[in-house]
Amino acid sequence: MTSYTEYLTITTPARYEIRDITAEVERVRRAANLHEGFVLVSTMHITSSIFVNDHEPGLWQDIWKWLETLAPARPDYAHHNTGEDNGDAHLKSILVHHEVIVPITDGKLDLGPWQQVFYAEFDGLRRKRLIIKAMGE
Amino acid sequence: MTSYTEYLTITTPARYEIRDITAEVERVRRAANLHEGFVLVSTMHITSSIFVNDHEPGLWQDIWKWLETLAPARPDYAHHNTGEDNGDAHLKSILVHHEVIVPITDGKLDLGPWQQVFYAEFDGLRRKRLIIKAMGE
Amino acid sequence: MTSYTEYLTITTPARYEIRDITAEVERVRRAANLHEGFVLVSTMHITSSIFVNDHEPGLWQDIWKWLETLAPARPDYAHHNTGEDNGDAHLKSILVHHEVIVPITDGKLDLGPWQQVFYAEFDGLRRKRLIIKAMGE
Repeated sequence: MTSYTEYLTITTPARYEIRDITAEVERVRRAANLHEGFVLVSTMHITSSIFVNDHEPGLWQDIWKWLETLAPARPDYAHHNTGEDNGDAHLKSILVHHEVIVPITDGKLDLGPWQQVFYAEFDGLRRKRLIIKAMGE
Repeated sequence: MTSYTEYLTITTPARYEIRDITAEVERVRRAANLHEGFVLVSTMHITSSIFVNDHEPGLWQDIWKWLETLAPARPDYAHHNTGEDNGDAHLKSILVHHEVIVPITDGKLDLGPWQQVFYAEFDGLRRKRLIIKAMGE
Repeated sequence: MTSYTEYLTITTPARYEIRDITAEVERVRRAANLHEGFVLVSTMHITSSIFVNDHEPGLWQDIWKWLETLAPARPDYAHHNTGEDNGDAHLKSILVHHEVIVPITDGKLDLGPWQQVFYAEFDGLRRKRLIIKAMGE
């Protein structure tokens, strides 16, 4: 088994942002030069997520409205007693999940026709890191 | 590392359906002939999910009612401006997640006594594909 | 590819509990003696979850309140017709997800500075098992 790891640094200019990182995942696969295997894409933070879905700005609007309904920004989280104000970001991160596995088959990311990989930031305006780790042969 | 990949095609006769695909995952493990490793089971679509839980029809009813509460079918999603009508299916897919990893130990799928692997369709009546990819030794 | 598997048994004294299992995951990585690869941490039950987030008791309070809002304990789940009373635990398990992949880089668990691995029990007071499986080289 060969393995190849890169770290991606993202500082979003807004507190909340969805960013398509499929090209970065493909770049790592190419650098790893794997024919069969997978890429683990995982945020290293507890206030952001990685997910796979559609590159469609209307959908992203729906996702933001939906997340705000299910895990709203509110002042009264117990987590805020630590001085933080990002309780909602932790819950959103758990809801959307912090990692995905992208299969590599025959030297290509084996995604469906509309599948793209996204980074979702729930507490931006600061430097965050993701790990993109390709493993296989 | 050895790797073996199959694609499963599913066309559900209903828009919403939960289908037990554990036997298919086991079939791929057997074909891959792996002793140690894992099987990645991942939908290639953005309006369906893969999850692990219980084979119990009452529970599936509860899951449908629950998903409809948390991510309801509604006419007013921004995604529908593209001509689509499946905004709820994208949100349900993000909620339930699109992939699972099933460990292989000692030549067997290493699932707990009640764990089964399910495909959840949120926008059926058309041909969908899953990837089942076994990796290990 | 080398692989090394341990099973962890947990019996929580309360029905609902969040437990930090990062030290157990690190112990398995050390026993596996891997330099590059990953650890799959997966509950073998359908009424508990594995997730990665922050070791902060205030946050755990928020998580419990939040889960009770999104997937409440209620008497009227269809699943209860089987004699069970844990319908909420199944839904909570699907929401939080049952597994995580922790990367291993350079002989260490490659987690972000605040990332810890947690077991979330939604139907405790009985013996449960997790699989912790390290794979790599």
